[in-house]
Amino acid sequence: MPESIRARLVQMEVRPGCPGENTAVMLDAIASARAERADFVIFPEMAIPGYLIGDEWEHVAFLRECEACAEEIRAASGGLTVLFGSVAMDWTRRNEDGRVRKYNAFFTAHDGAFVGPAGGPYPFVVKTLHPNYREFEDSRHFFGLRHLALEENRTPESLLAPVRVNGLDLGCVLCEDAWDADYAISPLRVLRARGAALMVNISASPFTFNKRRKRNQVFGAHAAALRCPIVYVNTVGIQNNGKTVFTFDGASAVYGSGGGMAAGPGPFESGAVTLDIPLDSGAAFGAQPEIRDDGIADLYAALTYGTRRFLELCGVDKVVVGVSGGIDSSVVAALYSRILPPDALLLVSMPGAYTSNTTRGLADALARNLGCLYTVVPIVDSAESTRRRLDGLDVRSPDGRRRTVLRCGERVMENIQARDRSARVLAAVAAAFGGVFTCNANKSEATVGYTTLYGDLGGFLASIADLWKTEVYALARHLNETVFGCETIPRGTLEIVPSAELSADQAVEAGRGDPLVYPYHDRLFQSWVEWWNRTTPEDILTWYADGTLAAKLKYDGDIGALFPSAAAFIADLERWWSHYQGMGLAKRIQAPPVLAVKRRAFGFDHREAQMGVRYTRAYTDLKRALLARCGCP
Amino acid sequence: MPESIRARLVQMEVRPGCPGENTAVMLDAIASARAERADFVIFPEMAIPGYLIGDEWEHVAFLRECEACAEEIRAASGGLTVLFGSVAMDWTRRNEDGRVRKYNAFFTAHDGAFVGPAGGPYPFVVKTLHPNYREFEDSRHFFGLRHLALEENRTPESLLAPVRVNGLDLGCVLCEDAWDADYAISPLRVLRARGAALMVNISASPFTFNKRRKRNQVFGAHAAALRCPIVYVNTVGIQNNGKTVFTFDGASAVYGSGGGMAAGPGPFESGAVTLDIPLDSGAAFGAQPEIRDDGIADLYAALTYGTRRFLELCGVDKVVVGVSGGIDSSVVAALYSRILPPDALLLVSMPGAYTSNTTRGLADALARNLGCLYTVVPIVDSAESTRRRLDGLDVRSPDGRRRTVLRCGERVMENIQARDRSARVLAAVAAAFGGVFTCNANKSEATVGYTTLYGDLGGFLASIADLWKTEVYALARHLNETVFGCETIPRGTLEIVPSAELSADQAVEAGRGDPLVYPYHDRLFQSWVEWWNRTTPEDILTWYADGTLAAKLKYDGDIGALFPSAAAFIADLERWWSHYQGMGLAKRIQAPPVLAVKRRAFGFDHREAQMGVRYTRAYTDLKRALLARCGCP
Repeated sequence: MPESIRARLVQMEVRPGCPGENTAVMLDAIASARAERADFVIFPEMAIPGYLIGDEWEHVAFLRECEACAEEIRAASGGLTVLFGSVAMDWTRRNEDGRVRKYNAFFTAHDGAFVGPAGGPYPFVVKTLHPNYREFEDSRHFFGLRHLALEENRTPESLLAPVRVNGLDLGCVLCEDAWDADYAISPLRVLRARGAALMVNISASPFTFNKRRKRNQVFGAHAAALRCPIVYVNTVGIQNNGKTVFTFDGASAVYGSGGGMAAGPGPFESGAVTLDIPLDSGAAFGAQPEIRDDGIADLYAALTYGTRRFLELCGVDKVVVGVSGGIDSSVVAALYSRILPPDALLLVSMPGAYTSNTTRGLADALARNLGCLYTVVPIVDSAESTRRRLDGLDVRSPDGRRRTVLRCGERVMENIQARDRSARVLAAVAAAFGGVFTCNANKSEATVGYTTLYGDLGGFLASIADLWKTEVYALARHLNETVFGCETIPRGTLEIVPSAELSADQAVEAGRGDPLVYPYHDRLFQSWVEWWNRTTPEDILTWYADGTLAAKLKYDGDIGALFPSAAAFIADLERWWSHYQGMGLAKRIQAPPVLAVKRRAFGFDHREAQMGVRYTRAYTDLKRALLARCGCP
Repeated sequence: MPESIRARLVQMEVRPGCPGENTAVMLDAIASARAERADFVIFPEMAIPGYLIGDEWEHVAFLRECEACAEEIRAASGGLTVLFGSVAMDWTRRNEDGRVRKYNAFFTAHDGAFVGPAGGPYPFVVKTLHPNYREFEDSRHFFGLRHLALEENRTPESLLAPVRVNGLDLGCVLCEDAWDADYAISPLRVLRARGAALMVNISASPFTFNKRRKRNQVFGAHAAALRCPIVYVNTVGIQNNGKTVFTFDGASAVYGSGGGMAAGPGPFESGAVTLDIPLDSGAAFGAQPEIRDDGIADLYAALTYGTRRFLELCGVDKVVVGVSGGIDSSVVAALYSRILPPDALLLVSMPGAYTSNTTRGLADALARNLGCLYTVVPIVDSAESTRRRLDGLDVRSPDGRRRTVLRCGERVMENIQARDRSARVLAAVAAAFGGVFTCNANKSEATVGYTTLYGDLGGFLASIADLWKTEVYALARHLNETVFGCETIPRGTLEIVPSAELSADQAVEAGRGDPLVYPYHDRLFQSWVEWWNRTTPEDILTWYADGTLAAKLKYDGDIGALFPSAAAFIADLERWWSHYQGMGLAKRIQAPPVLAVKRRAFGFDHREAQMGVRYTRAYTDLKRALLARCGCP
C-alpha cells in the first residue's frame, strides 16, 4: 500500500439528462488530472446521467447512451484511475417493475479497464442504501445491493468488498451509504473491516439549509471512528423534479483519519482540486472542519445561484417582476437585479383602487434604485369593467326555466384584481417583452393559500417560496446591508405593515394589513411543514394546554397576548389549518416550480393529497375539554 | 379444516386520511356480516387510513388514531374473523429515514384477538412486495418483509407463514404480493407450500383502462396453478396524489381453485357480498372470469364517478364550463350535466374576434340541449383594450437611460384572449356563482402544451386530460348514442375541424384548425407517454427509417402521405418533441389535477424533470444519415 495518494476531486456541474455534455466535461477533467500527475480522478455520483431526472430512467435509448459514455470514460483512463458514478444496466435481468435492471453504480476505471469489488457479480459497485424519503426515490429506479443479495442468496455484507487498485483497497460508496444512522447495515464499517484503507464517497446531494454542518459532522465522525481518510465528491448545478428545483453546492472535501478536513472548490463552484492524501491510519490532514449554522448569506447564495441556473435552463434572458412596493416583490426584484442586466429586467407597478400613495411611491423608488426598466399599468379601469360586466348579470337557461343572478362581492373583487395583474397584464407584458414573469409568493402565503390562483401565484418560478415571511425581511436587510451596501429596497418597504391592498380593509396607511401575525404564524407553519416530525393541531393544542407551546415553537412572544382565550386560539389554529389542508393545497398543486433551499419545500419533498380538512379524535376531545374549562360554547 | 367457509367481501369506499369515518363503516359492516353468519368479513388494504395519502404517514397523531381504530375493530371481532388492512407501527424500531417503523399490514382479528403468522415477530402480516413504480411508493413509507428478514437475520421465506384461524391456514397477502411476475419471490407460492388452503388478497388498486382484464388473468392463473381459492377484496372511491386523481373500481371477487370466479359488488359500487367458498382443492366455483378489453363505456363510468367524487371531496356543488362549440368543452359540459342538476351547471360562451358564427351557434345549441344555465360574455373589447394598452408601450428606466417598446404580435394576442377567457371571465363568474370552473384540456394538448397557461389550462380539475383527442371524439359519440340516446352534443361539433379560433389562421369555416393530425399524433404521443417502455425520437426515427413506424404505432394511415420527405417527417417529430419536453412540461407543472383513467396520466404516474430538449447521439447520427440520403440540407 502506498503511503499517500494524489487525488483530483472534480466538483463538476452535472447537467441532468445530458450524458454527452457531462462526458465531455469529464474527459477534459481527466486530461487535467493527468497533467497534474494525479493517481485518482474522482467525479460525483451519477456524473454522466444526472440524478433527479424523473422517469427519464425508463428511456432505453437514454440508458444506452449513458452506457456508451461510461465506455468512453473507461477508454480514457489509461495511466490513472477514474472513479465516477453512473447508471449501470444488467440487460439480462429485470427490475421489479419488469423493466431492465438498473443500478445506481460506482465505477472504477483503472488504466483502461473497469475494476469491481472482489467476489461481486459486476465490474462496478452497487449502492447499498437507497434513500426513499423527502425528494429521493432511488428504489423507484434502481435495484439495491440488499435486494441483489437476496436474489443471489448471499448476505449484503458478502457483496460489500473493497475495490483493489495498485495494491490499495478502496471503500467505494455512494451518498446515502455514509448516512447510515438509521439503517441496519453500515457499508463503511463493513468495508473498513474488510481492509479498505481509503474511503471514497461520491454524492449527488442537494443544498439544504444547515446540511453542510451536518455533513461535516457525519463525515468527520466516520473518518475518526474508522481511522481512515474519506474523500467526498459532490456535484454542483441545479436539478429538479418538475415542481421542486434543487441546488447542489458541492462541498467536496477530504476528511482525515486523524481529524481535520481539506476543502475542495467553494460552494456552488464547479472546479477541481488536487490533494495528496496520507493513508496511514490516524494521520491528521487539513484544518478542523467548520461546524457552523448556515445564515442568510448562504440562503442568498443558493437563491441567486438557483435562479440564475434555472433561467439558463429555460433559455430565458428577460424577466418581468410585478412590484407592489411591498416586501416580497421588492426582494424578488432586487435578487433578479443581481442576475440580469438592467435592460433585461422590467418592473411593472399595477396600482388598483386600493393601492396607497405610500406603496406606489415605494415601487417607484425601488425601480429608481435598481435602475432597470420600469412602467406603470393601472388596473383600476379593467377591474371595474369586469365588475360592471358580471355583477348583477342575469343568467338563465335557454328555455328560461332556470335563472340566477351573479354577484361580485368584496372577496370576488379582490381576486379579480389579483388575476387582472398577473394573468392579463404581467403575462402579456412578459410575452411582449420576450421574457417571463416571476412569482413572488413566500412560504407563509403558500402554506395557507393567501394568494390568488392565476393571480399572484402565477409566474415561471417561485424564487422565494421556500422562505417564511420573516425570512424575506431578513433577506431584504441582508440585500441592503451586505449585497448592495446601501438602501436599495426602500426603508419604507421594510417598515409598512404587510398588506395585499386589495380591499378597503387592507389600508396600509391606516396600518391595516395581512391577517397573519408573521412572527408567530411563521413558527406555527414551520412546525407543520419543516419539522422532521411534522406537527398537527393535536400536538399544537396539547402544547397550548400545557403552556409549552411558545417554547416548543421557539416563539419568543407571548401567545396569551395574541389570543385572549382558548376559544380565540383554537379559532385561529383551525382557520389556518383548514386553509393549509384545503384551498392552500389546491393552489399549491397549480403553483409554479419552487426553488428549494430548506428542508421540505412545497412539491416533491412534501407530498400532499387533497383529502379535505381533518382533525384527530384526540384533538377534538382536547378542544372540547379546553372550551368547557374556559366556559366557551 | 372445514369444507367451505362463508366469507363476506366488503368492497368499501375508503375515505383517505379519515380513520374514524372508515372505522365506523367497518363496524357497521361487521354487524351485517354477523347477521349473515359469515365466518370471515374481509376489508381492503389500508381500509382504515386510506392508501394514497401523501406524507400524512409521517403525522404521528394520525398513526396513533389508526392504531386506536384497529383496536376498535379487534374488539368488535367477537364470534367471527375480521380481515383488514391498515398501517402497523413498531414504536420500538425505526424506518430507514429515522421515523417510526411502519408496515403496510394485513390484520386478522379473530374473536377479539389479533392472530399473526406462526413464528413471526408481529401479530399481523407484513407486505412482502412493495410497488415502487407508477404512482406507487410503498417503500417511501413502509418497511417491507424483505428488509425485515435482513434485519432479523432470517430469510423472507421463513417469515411468510400462513395465519391459522379455526384450523384453517390462511394465506394473507396484500395487493402487489400477488403481482409477482418480476420479483425473485412469490409470496403466494411460498404460502401454499407452507399449507395455506385459502388465499386472501386485500388491495388498494386503482382503476386503469384494461386492468380488470389483467387482474382476472393474474388471479385466475394463480388460483389454478396453486389449486387454491383466492379471495380478492379491493377498495372503491377516489384517492389522489395532489396532481393525479385516481379512481378505485373494486372488482372484488373469489377465484376458484378449479377455475371460475364469483364477482362481488359492481365496479365503483360500495357494497358487500356473502359467498360460501369451497375449500377442497380443485373445486370449480362461479362462472368463467370475463377476459375482455375495456371500452369507452368503462372510461365514461370512471370519468363520471371520479368527477362526482372529486366535487364532493372539494365540497363543490356548482360548476362553470367555458364552452366554445368545440369538442372538448362540449364533452366536459355533457359529462357534468350527468353529475349536477341543470341549475348548478353554468355554461359560458366567450366569443372573441375570431370566433365563427358556426361555433357560436354550436355552443348555443349545446346549452339548449343540456337545459342548464347559459350566458354569453364576449371578450372582443377587453382583449382589444389590453392590446391598445400594451402594444407599442414605451418602457424606460427611471433615469431614462434604458428603453424598449413592447409589441403584441399575433401569438401574444392569441394567449391574451385565452387568458382573458379563463383568468378574467370564468374565474370571476365561478366565484360569483359560488362554484368552480373546469379545465377542458385533453391529453394531446397537455402533451405538447397546445394550451395557454392561466388560460384554457386553468380550472379546478382536468376531467378529460387523460384522454387523447381521438378518444374525446369517441366519448362524444358514446354520450350521444348511449348515454343521452339523442344528439346532445351537436353533430356540427363532431364534424367541424378542431380549432382554437384565436387567430385568422384558425378559421373553422375555412377548414383551418389545429396543427395536429390527431389520428397520427395521438398514436405518436401515446408511444412517448403511455407505452410501458416509453419511446423517444431515437426509436421513432429508427422505425421510420426501416418502414415499420405505422405498424409499431398501430397507425392505420399512410405516414408517407403525411410527410412528403424525411426532412418533413423529422421537422414534425422535433417540433412536437421539443414542445413535449419544453413548454408542454412547464405548463403541466402548473396544470390542475388530472383525473387518471389510463396508464400514466400526467402527474404522479409520469414523473418529469425540466431538463431542456434533448436527443441522443444515436438519434442525431441517424437523422444526419437520413437527411443526407434524401439530399436535404
